[in-house]
Amino acid sequence: MEPVPDTPRTPKAAQTRAAILATALRLFREDGYDRTTMRAVAKEAGVSLGSAYYYFASKEHLVQAFYDELLTEHQAAVEEVLARESGFAARLQGSLEAWLAVAAPHHAFAAQFFRNAADPASPLSPFSAESAPARDGSIALMRRLLDGSDAKVSRALQAQLPDLLWLLQMGVVLFWVYDASDDQRRTRTLVRGLVPLVDRLVRMSRLPVLRGVVDDVLALVASLRT
Amino acid sequence: MEPVPDTPRTPKAAQTRAAILATALRLFREDGYDRTTMRAVAKEAGVSLGSAYYYFASKEHLVQAFYDELLTEHQAAVEEVLARESGFAARLQGSLEAWLAVAAPHHAFAAQFFRNAADPASPLSPFSAESAPARDGSIALMRRLLDGSDAKVSRALQAQLPDLLWLLQMGVVLFWVYDASDDQRRTRTLVRGLVPLVDRLVRMSRLPVLRGVVDDVLALVASLRT
Repeated sequence: MEPVPDTPRTPKAAQTRAAILATALRLFREDGYDRTTMRAVAKEAGVSLGSAYYYFASKEHLVQAFYDELLTEHQAAVEEVLARESGFAARLQGSLEAWLAVAAPHHAFAAQFFRNAADPASPLSPFSAESAPARDGSIALMRRLLDGSDAKVSRALQAQLPDLLWLLQMGVVLFWVYDASDDQRRTRTLVRGLVPLVDRLVRMSRLPVLRGVVDDVLALVASLRT
Repeated sequence: MEPVPDTPRTPKAAQTRAAILATALRLFREDGYDRTTMRAVAKEAGVSLGSAYYYFASKEHLVQAFYDELLTEHQAAVEEVLARESGFAARLQGSLEAWLAVAAPHHAFAAQFFRNAADPASPLSPFSAESAPARDGSIALMRRLLDGSDAKVSRALQAQLPDLLWLLQMGVVLFWVYDASDDQRRTRTLVRGLVPLVDRLVRMSRLPVLRGVVDDVLALVASLRT
Protein backbone atom coordinates (compact mmCIF):
# COMPACT_ATOMS: atom_id res chain seq x y z
CA MET A 1 0.00 0.00 0.00
CA GLU A 2 1.07 3.61 -0.58
CA PRO A 3 2.27 5.72 2.31
CA VAL A 4 -0.39 8.05 3.66
CA PRO A 5 -0.09 11.24 5.70
CA ASP A 6 -0.82 9.61 9.07
CA THR A 7 0.59 12.49 11.09
CA PRO A 8 -1.40 15.46 9.83
CA ARG A 9 0.51 18.74 9.77
CA THR A 10 -2.13 21.03 11.29
CA PRO A 11 -4.70 20.76 14.08
CA LYS A 12 -7.43 21.25 11.47
CA ALA A 13 -6.06 18.36 9.40
CA ALA A 14 -5.85 16.13 12.48
CA GLN A 15 -9.47 16.99 13.26
CA THR A 16 -10.65 16.22 9.73
CA ARG A 17 -8.76 12.91 9.72
CA ALA A 18 -10.24 11.90 13.10
CA ALA A 19 -13.75 12.82 11.92
CA ILE A 20 -13.38 10.66 8.79
CA LEU A 21 -12.09 7.71 10.84
CA ALA A 22 -14.88 7.97 13.45
CA THR A 23 -17.51 8.18 10.69
CA ALA A 24 -16.04 5.13 8.92
CA LEU A 25 -16.07 3.05 12.10
CA ARG A 26 -19.69 4.00 12.72
CA LEU A 27 -20.68 3.03 9.16
CA PHE A 28 -18.72 -0.25 9.35
CA ARG A 29 -20.65 -1.08 12.50
CA GLU A 30 -24.05 -0.02 11.14
CA ASP A 31 -23.86 -1.19 7.52
CA GLY A 32 -21.05 -3.75 7.60
CA TYR A 33 -17.49 -3.38 6.33
CA ASP A 34 -18.11 -4.89 2.88
CA ARG A 35 -21.09 -2.65 2.13
CA THR A 36 -19.48 0.61 3.27
CA THR A 37 -17.91 2.68 0.46
CA MET A 38 -15.36 5.51 0.66
CA ARG A 39 -18.01 7.65 -1.05
CA ALA A 40 -20.48 7.00 1.80
CA VAL A 41 -17.79 7.72 4.41
CA ALA A 42 -16.91 11.05 2.75
CA LYS A 43 -20.56 12.07 2.44
CA GLU A 44 -21.41 11.23 6.08
CA ALA A 45 -18.27 12.94 7.35
CA GLY A 46 -19.12 16.05 5.31
CA VAL A 47 -15.91 16.08 3.28
CA SER A 48 -15.20 15.68 -0.42
CA LEU A 49 -14.31 12.26 -1.80
CA GLY A 50 -10.88 13.65 -2.75
CA SER A 51 -10.32 14.77 0.82
CA ALA A 52 -11.27 11.33 2.19
CA TYR A 53 -8.82 9.68 -0.20
CA TYR A 54 -6.15 12.22 0.76
CA TYR A 55 -6.23 10.99 4.37
CA PHE A 56 -6.98 7.31 3.69
CA ALA A 57 -5.90 5.77 0.40
CA SER A 58 -8.39 2.90 0.81
CA LYS A 59 -10.82 1.23 3.21
CA GLU A 60 -7.91 -0.96 4.35
CA HIS A 61 -6.06 2.19 5.45
CA LEU A 62 -9.05 3.13 7.58
CA VAL A 63 -8.85 -0.23 9.34
CA GLN A 64 -5.08 0.08 9.85
CA ALA A 65 -5.74 3.50 11.41
CA PHE A 66 -8.30 1.83 13.66
CA TYR A 67 -5.68 -0.76 14.71
CA ASP A 68 -3.24 2.09 15.43
CA GLU A 69 -5.84 3.91 17.51
CA LEU A 70 -6.64 0.77 19.52
CA LEU A 71 -2.91 0.31 20.14
CA THR A 72 -2.48 3.92 21.28
CA GLU A 73 -5.41 3.61 23.70
CA HIS A 74 -4.10 0.27 24.94
CA GLN A 75 -0.60 1.69 25.47
CA ALA A 76 -1.98 4.56 27.55
CA ALA A 77 -4.05 2.16 29.69
CA VAL A 78 -1.09 -0.20 30.15
CA GLU A 79 1.22 2.63 31.24
CA GLU A 80 -0.99 3.12 34.28
CA VAL A 81 -0.81 -0.59 35.10
CA LEU A 82 2.99 -0.72 34.70
CA ALA A 83 3.46 2.35 36.91
CA ARG A 84 1.39 0.67 39.63
CA GLU A 85 2.37 -3.01 39.49
CA SER A 86 5.74 -4.74 39.53
CA GLY A 87 4.52 -8.37 39.68
CA PHE A 88 4.66 -10.15 36.33
CA ALA A 89 1.20 -11.73 36.77
CA ALA A 90 -0.43 -8.43 37.80
CA ARG A 91 1.16 -6.62 34.84
CA LEU A 92 0.07 -9.31 32.36
CA GLN A 93 -3.45 -9.46 33.76
CA GLY A 94 -3.71 -5.67 33.79
CA SER A 95 -2.52 -5.48 30.19
CA LEU A 96 -4.96 -8.10 28.89
CA GLU A 97 -7.85 -6.57 30.83
CA ALA A 98 -6.92 -3.11 29.54
CA TRP A 99 -7.10 -4.47 25.98
CA LEU A 100 -10.55 -5.94 26.63
CA ALA A 101 -11.76 -2.63 28.07
CA VAL A 102 -10.38 -0.60 25.15
CA ALA A 103 -11.76 -3.03 22.55
CA ALA A 104 -15.17 -3.62 24.17
CA PRO A 105 -17.06 -0.88 22.28
CA HIS A 106 -15.89 -2.46 19.01
CA HIS A 107 -16.84 -6.08 19.73
CA ALA A 108 -19.82 -6.20 17.36
CA PHE A 109 -17.74 -4.71 14.55
CA ALA A 110 -14.82 -7.05 15.29
CA ALA A 111 -17.04 -10.13 15.07
CA GLN A 112 -18.55 -9.19 11.70
CA PHE A 113 -15.25 -7.81 10.44
CA PHE A 114 -13.13 -10.81 11.43
CA ARG A 115 -13.79 -12.64 8.16
CA ASN A 116 -11.76 -9.95 6.39
CA ALA A 117 -8.88 -9.91 8.87
CA ALA A 118 -8.74 -13.71 8.86
CA ASP A 119 -8.05 -13.87 5.12
CA PRO A 120 -4.36 -14.86 5.00
CA ALA A 121 -3.83 -12.71 1.88
CA SER A 122 -5.46 -9.62 3.40
CA PRO A 123 -3.34 -6.61 4.44
CA LEU A 124 -5.65 -6.51 7.46
CA SER A 125 -4.42 -9.84 8.84
CA PRO A 126 -2.45 -9.38 12.10
CA PHE A 127 0.43 -11.23 10.41
CA SER A 128 0.61 -9.03 7.27
CA ALA A 129 3.43 -6.65 6.37
CA GLU A 130 0.94 -3.78 6.56
CA SER A 131 0.06 -4.67 10.17
CA ALA A 132 3.74 -4.64 11.20
CA PRO A 133 3.62 -1.23 12.97
CA ALA A 134 0.67 -2.26 15.19
CA ARG A 135 2.21 -5.72 15.74
CA ASP A 136 5.65 -4.28 16.64
CA GLY A 137 4.01 -1.79 18.98
CA SER A 138 2.17 -4.58 20.80
CA ILE A 139 5.32 -6.69 21.10
CA ALA A 140 7.25 -3.67 22.43
CA LEU A 141 4.55 -3.25 25.07
CA MET A 142 5.03 -6.90 26.12
CA ARG A 143 8.78 -6.26 26.28
CA ARG A 144 8.25 -3.36 28.72
CA LEU A 145 5.76 -5.43 30.71
CA LEU A 146 8.30 -8.24 31.12
CA ASP A 147 11.55 -6.27 31.57
CA GLY A 148 10.18 -4.06 34.33
CA SER A 149 8.61 -6.97 36.21
CA ASP A 150 9.85 -9.28 38.96
CA ALA A 151 9.91 -12.31 36.58
CA LYS A 152 13.23 -14.14 36.60
CA VAL A 153 13.81 -16.11 33.41
CA SER A 154 16.78 -17.37 31.43
CA ARG A 155 18.41 -14.98 29.00
CA ALA A 156 17.18 -17.03 26.01
CA LEU A 157 13.58 -16.97 27.23
CA GLN A 158 13.82 -13.27 28.13
CA ALA A 159 14.65 -12.57 24.49
CA GLN A 160 11.71 -14.55 23.05
CA LEU A 161 9.03 -14.20 25.69
CA PRO A 162 7.55 -10.89 24.41
CA ASP A 163 6.83 -12.57 21.05
CA LEU A 164 5.22 -15.53 22.84
CA LEU A 165 3.17 -13.19 25.02
CA TRP A 166 1.98 -11.37 21.89
CA LEU A 167 0.89 -14.73 20.43
CA LEU A 168 -0.93 -15.40 23.70
CA GLN A 169 -2.69 -12.06 23.32
CA MET A 170 -3.65 -12.97 19.72
CA GLY A 171 -5.13 -16.20 21.12
CA VAL A 172 -7.16 -14.17 23.63
CA VAL A 173 -8.29 -11.83 20.83
CA LEU A 174 -9.37 -14.84 18.74
CA PHE A 175 -11.35 -16.22 21.68
CA TRP A 176 -12.86 -12.75 22.27
CA VAL A 177 -13.98 -12.44 18.64
CA TYR A 178 -15.86 -15.73 18.98
CA ASP A 179 -17.19 -14.87 22.46
CA ALA A 180 -20.97 -14.37 22.30
CA SER A 181 -21.48 -14.23 26.10
CA ASP A 182 -22.80 -11.02 27.72
CA ASP A 183 -20.06 -8.37 27.88
CA GLN A 184 -17.59 -11.09 26.80
CA ARG A 185 -17.72 -12.59 30.27
CA ARG A 186 -16.14 -15.85 29.08
CA THR A 187 -13.06 -14.04 27.78
CA ARG A 188 -12.55 -12.48 31.19
CA THR A 189 -12.84 -15.96 32.71
CA LEU A 190 -10.21 -17.12 30.23
CA VAL A 191 -7.84 -14.28 31.16
CA ARG A 192 -8.29 -14.89 34.90
CA GLY A 193 -7.41 -18.56 34.36
CA LEU A 194 -4.62 -18.08 31.82
CA VAL A 195 -2.58 -15.49 33.71
CA PRO A 196 -1.78 -17.60 36.82
CA LEU A 197 -0.99 -20.52 34.49
CA VAL A 198 1.46 -18.50 32.38
CA ASP A 199 2.91 -16.97 35.54
CA ARG A 200 3.45 -20.43 37.02
CA LEU A 201 5.11 -21.71 33.83
CA VAL A 202 7.38 -18.65 33.64
CA ARG A 203 8.38 -19.11 37.29
CA MET A 204 9.06 -22.81 36.69
CA SER A 205 10.99 -22.23 33.47
CA ARG A 206 14.31 -22.19 35.35
CA LEU A 207 13.72 -25.52 37.10
CA PRO A 208 16.01 -28.21 35.68
CA VAL A 209 13.02 -30.46 34.93
CA LEU A 210 11.44 -27.81 32.68
CA ARG A 211 14.57 -26.49 31.00
CA GLY A 212 14.23 -29.06 28.23
CA VAL A 213 10.67 -27.94 27.52
CA VAL A 214 11.71 -24.29 27.37
CA ASP A 215 14.57 -25.18 25.01
CA ASP A 216 12.13 -27.13 22.82
CA VAL A 217 9.73 -24.18 22.65
CA LEU A 218 12.50 -21.71 21.80
CA ALA A 219 13.98 -24.04 19.16
CA LEU A 220 10.54 -24.51 17.61
CA VAL A 221 9.90 -20.76 17.44
CA ALA A 222 13.36 -20.22 15.94
CA SER A 223 12.85 -22.97 13.34
CA LEU A 224 9.63 -21.34 12.18
CA ARG A 225 11.28 -17.94 11.74
CA THR A 226 13.76 -19.06 9.11
CA MET B 1 -30.15 -26.03 8.49
CA GLU B 2 -32.58 -28.71 7.28
CA PRO B 3 -31.57 -32.35 7.40
CA VAL B 4 -30.33 -33.62 4.03
CA PRO B 5 -30.11 -37.15 2.65
CA ASP B 6 -26.40 -37.59 3.28
CA THR B 7 -26.51 -41.37 2.93
CA PRO B 8 -27.98 -41.86 -0.51
CA ARG B 9 -30.15 -44.97 -0.87
CA THR B 10 -28.81 -46.28 -4.18
CA PRO B 11 -25.37 -46.52 -5.82
CA LYS B 12 -26.63 -44.23 -8.58
CA ALA B 13 -27.67 -41.63 -6.02
CA ALA B 14 -24.31 -41.89 -4.24
CA GLN B 15 -22.58 -41.37 -7.57
CA THR B 16 -24.67 -38.31 -8.44
CA ARG B 17 -24.08 -36.82 -5.02
CA ALA B 18 -20.30 -37.39 -5.28
CA ALA B 19 -20.22 -35.83 -8.76
CA ILE B 20 -22.03 -32.71 -7.53
CA LEU B 21 -19.66 -32.37 -4.57
CA ALA B 22 -16.53 -32.84 -6.71
CA THR B 23 -17.79 -30.27 -9.23
CA ALA B 24 -18.56 -27.79 -6.46
CA LEU B 25 -15.08 -28.13 -4.95
CA ARG B 26 -13.52 -27.56 -8.37
CA LEU B 27 -15.63 -24.42 -8.96
CA PHE B 28 -14.88 -23.10 -5.44
CA ARG B 29 -11.20 -23.48 -6.21
CA GLU B 30 -11.38 -21.96 -9.70
CA ASP B 31 -13.93 -19.16 -9.22
CA GLY B 32 -13.92 -18.65 -5.47
CA TYR B 33 -16.54 -19.70 -2.93
CA ASP B 34 -18.46 -16.42 -2.89
CA ARG B 35 -18.81 -16.26 -6.66
CA THR B 36 -19.90 -19.90 -7.17
CA THR B 37 -23.68 -20.41 -7.37
CA MET B 38 -25.71 -23.59 -6.94
CA ARG B 39 -26.95 -22.99 -10.49
CA ALA B 40 -23.36 -23.10 -11.83
CA VAL B 41 -22.61 -26.24 -9.80
CA ALA B 42 -25.70 -28.02 -11.19
CA LYS B 43 -24.91 -26.96 -14.77
CA GLU B 44 -21.25 -28.06 -14.59
CA ALA B 45 -22.20 -31.37 -12.95
CA GLY B 46 -24.81 -32.01 -15.64
CA VAL B 47 -27.77 -32.27 -13.27
CA SER B 48 -30.91 -30.16 -12.83
CA LEU B 49 -30.95 -27.38 -10.25
CA GLY B 50 -33.68 -29.29 -8.40
CA SER B 51 -31.46 -32.35 -8.22
CA ALA B 52 -28.54 -30.34 -6.86
CA TYR B 53 -30.79 -28.87 -4.17
CA TYR B 54 -32.14 -32.34 -3.38
CA TYR B 55 -28.67 -33.51 -2.37
CA PHE B 56 -27.37 -30.23 -0.91
CA ALA B 57 -29.84 -27.74 0.51
CA SER B 58 -27.29 -24.89 0.23
CA LYS B 59 -23.68 -24.05 -0.53
CA GLU B 60 -23.00 -24.41 3.21
CA HIS B 61 -24.14 -28.03 2.97
CA LEU B 62 -21.60 -28.62 0.23
CA VAL B 63 -18.85 -27.36 2.52
CA GLN B 64 -20.09 -29.48 5.44
CA ALA B 65 -20.00 -32.48 3.07
CA PHE B 66 -16.42 -31.50 2.20
CA TYR B 67 -15.54 -31.41 5.92
CA ASP B 68 -17.13 -34.86 6.32
CA GLU B 69 -15.18 -36.21 3.36
CA LEU B 70 -11.89 -34.83 4.73
CA LEU B 71 -12.69 -36.45 8.07
CA THR B 72 -13.48 -39.82 6.44
CA GLU B 73 -10.20 -39.75 4.49
CA HIS B 74 -8.31 -38.68 7.60
CA GLN B 75 -9.89 -41.47 9.66
CA ALA B 76 -8.86 -44.08 7.09
CA ALA B 77 -5.28 -42.77 7.01
CA VAL B 78 -5.08 -42.64 10.80
CA GLU B 79 -6.33 -46.23 11.16
CA GLU B 80 -3.19 -47.39 9.40
CA VAL B 81 -1.02 -45.35 11.75
CA LEU B 82 -2.81 -46.64 14.86
CA ALA B 83 -2.51 -50.25 13.69
CA ARG B 84 1.25 -49.77 13.25
CA GLU B 85 2.29 -47.54 16.17
CA SER B 86 1.69 -47.78 19.91
CA GLY B 87 3.85 -44.83 21.01
CA PHE B 88 1.84 -41.71 21.81
CA ALA B 89 4.25 -39.39 19.97
CA ALA B 90 4.34 -41.58 16.84
CA ARG B 91 0.53 -41.82 16.80
CA LEU B 92 0.09 -38.07 17.23
CA GLN B 93 2.71 -37.25 14.61
CA GLY B 94 1.22 -39.80 12.20
CA SER B 95 -2.26 -38.37 12.70
CA LEU B 96 -1.21 -34.75 12.11
CA GLU B 97 0.87 -35.70 9.07
CA ALA B 98 -2.03 -37.75 7.70
CA TRP B 99 -4.25 -34.69 8.00
CA LEU B 100 -1.72 -32.55 6.13
CA ALA B 101 -1.48 -35.18 3.36
CA VAL B 102 -5.26 -35.50 3.02
CA ALA B 103 -5.80 -31.73 3.05
CA ALA B 104 -2.85 -30.80 0.80
CA PRO B 105 -4.81 -30.81 -2.51
CA HIS B 106 -7.24 -28.33 -0.97
CA HIS B 107 -4.75 -25.81 0.42
CA ALA B 108 -5.43 -23.08 -2.16
CA PHE B 109 -9.17 -23.41 -1.59
CA ALA B 110 -8.75 -23.44 2.19
CA ALA B 111 -6.73 -20.22 2.16
CA GLN B 112 -9.26 -18.29 0.08
CA PHE B 113 -12.19 -19.95 1.83
CA PHE B 114 -10.97 -19.34 5.37
CA ARG B 115 -12.58 -15.88 5.58
CA ASN B 116 -15.98 -17.62 5.50
CA ALA B 117 -15.14 -20.31 8.06
CA ALA B 118 -13.60 -17.70 10.36
CA ASP B 119 -16.83 -15.74 10.65
CA PRO B 120 -17.97 -16.55 14.21
CA ALA B 121 -21.62 -16.50 13.10
CA SER B 122 -21.06 -18.83 10.12
CA PRO B 123 -22.36 -22.43 10.19
CA LEU B 124 -19.01 -23.26 8.57
CA SER B 125 -16.99 -22.24 11.63
CA PRO B 126 -15.33 -25.27 13.29
CA PHE B 127 -17.07 -24.23 16.52
CA SER B 128 -20.61 -24.03 15.07
CA ALA B 129 -23.50 -26.38 15.90
CA GLU B 130 -23.54 -27.44 12.24
CA SER B 131 -19.89 -28.52 12.40
CA ALA B 132 -20.53 -30.70 15.46
CA PRO B 133 -20.48 -34.05 13.57
CA ALA B 134 -17.06 -33.35 11.99
CA ARG B 135 -15.76 -31.91 15.27
CA ASP B 136 -17.02 -34.88 17.32
CA GLY B 137 -15.53 -37.29 14.78
CA SER B 138 -12.12 -35.59 15.08
CA ILE B 139 -12.24 -35.64 18.88
CA ALA B 140 -13.23 -39.34 18.83
CA LEU B 141 -10.18 -40.00 16.66
CA MET B 142 -7.97 -38.25 19.25
CA ARG B 143 -9.62 -40.37 21.95
CA ARG B 144 -8.66 -43.59 20.09
CA LEU B 145 -5.17 -42.24 19.44
CA LEU B 146 -4.66 -41.60 23.17
CA ASP B 147 -6.43 -44.61 24.70
CA GLY B 148 -4.60 -47.17 22.59
CA SER B 149 -1.19 -45.56 23.18
CA ASP B 150 1.52 -46.05 25.80
CA ALA B 151 0.84 -42.60 27.35
CA LYS B 152 0.28 -42.75 31.10
CA VAL B 153 -1.69 -39.81 32.39
CA SER B 154 -3.94 -39.04 35.33
CA ARG B 155 -7.60 -40.00 35.04
CA ALA B 156 -8.65 -36.34 34.94
CA LEU B 157 -6.24 -35.54 32.12
CA GLN B 158 -7.17 -38.73 30.26
CA ALA B 159 -10.76 -37.47 30.15
CA GLN B 160 -9.91 -34.01 28.78
CA LEU B 161 -6.82 -34.63 26.67
CA PRO B 162 -8.67 -35.56 23.43
CA ASP B 163 -10.40 -32.15 23.48
CA LEU B 164 -7.06 -30.43 24.07
CA LEU B 165 -5.44 -32.45 21.26
CA TRP B 166 -8.28 -31.40 18.95
CA LEU B 167 -7.61 -27.75 19.86
CA LEU B 168 -3.94 -28.40 19.08
CA GLN B 169 -4.96 -29.76 15.68
CA MET B 170 -7.11 -26.65 15.09
CA GLY B 171 -4.02 -24.58 15.89
CA VAL B 172 -2.03 -26.56 13.32
CA VAL B 173 -4.84 -26.09 10.77
CA LEU B 174 -4.84 -22.34 11.44
CA PHE B 175 -1.07 -22.22 10.92
CA TRP B 176 -1.45 -24.33 7.74
CA VAL B 177 -4.08 -21.98 6.30
CA TYR B 178 -1.65 -19.08 6.70
CA ASP B 179 1.33 -21.11 5.48
CA ALA B 180 2.50 -19.74 2.11
CA SER B 181 5.72 -21.82 1.99
CA ASP B 182 6.23 -24.42 -0.78
CA ASP B 183 4.14 -27.52 -0.07
CA GLN B 184 3.41 -26.06 3.38
CA ARG B 185 6.92 -26.97 4.51
CA ARG B 186 6.70 -24.67 7.54
CA THR B 187 3.65 -26.50 8.87
CA ARG B 188 5.55 -29.79 8.71
CA THR B 189 8.38 -28.11 10.63
CA LEU B 190 5.81 -26.99 13.19
CA VAL B 191 4.39 -30.53 13.55
CA ARG B 192 7.86 -32.06 13.92
CA GLY B 193 8.63 -29.57 16.69
CA LEU B 194 5.26 -29.63 18.42
CA VAL B 195 4.88 -33.39 18.77
CA PRO B 196 7.97 -34.05 20.95
CA LEU B 197 7.02 -31.02 23.05
CA VAL B 198 3.47 -32.26 23.66
CA ASP B 199 4.80 -35.77 24.26
CA ARG B 200 7.25 -34.44 26.84
CA LEU B 201 4.56 -32.42 28.61
CA VAL B 202 2.17 -35.41 28.67
CA ARG B 203 4.92 -37.61 30.11
CA MET B 204 5.74 -34.99 32.73
CA SER B 205 2.11 -34.35 33.65
CA ARG B 206 2.28 -36.87 36.52
CA LEU B 207 5.38 -35.31 38.13
CA PRO B 208 4.44 -33.59 41.39
CA VAL B 209 6.00 -30.34 40.17
CA LEU B 210 3.68 -30.22 37.15
CA ARG B 211 0.49 -31.48 38.76
CA GLY B 212 -0.52 -27.95 39.72
CA VAL B 213 -0.14 -26.81 36.10
CA VAL B 214 -2.26 -29.72 34.84
CA ASP B 215 -4.93 -28.95 37.44
CA ASP B 216 -4.89 -25.27 36.37
CA VAL B 217 -5.33 -26.24 32.71
CA LEU B 218 -8.19 -28.63 33.45
CA ALA B 219 -9.93 -26.11 35.74
CA LEU B 220 -9.59 -23.43 33.07
CA VAL B 221 -11.09 -25.67 30.37
CA ALA B 222 -13.93 -26.65 32.72
CA SER B 223 -14.65 -23.01 33.65
CA LEU B 224 -14.98 -22.10 29.97
CA ARG B 225 -17.46 -24.91 29.29
CA THR B 226 -20.11 -23.64 31.68
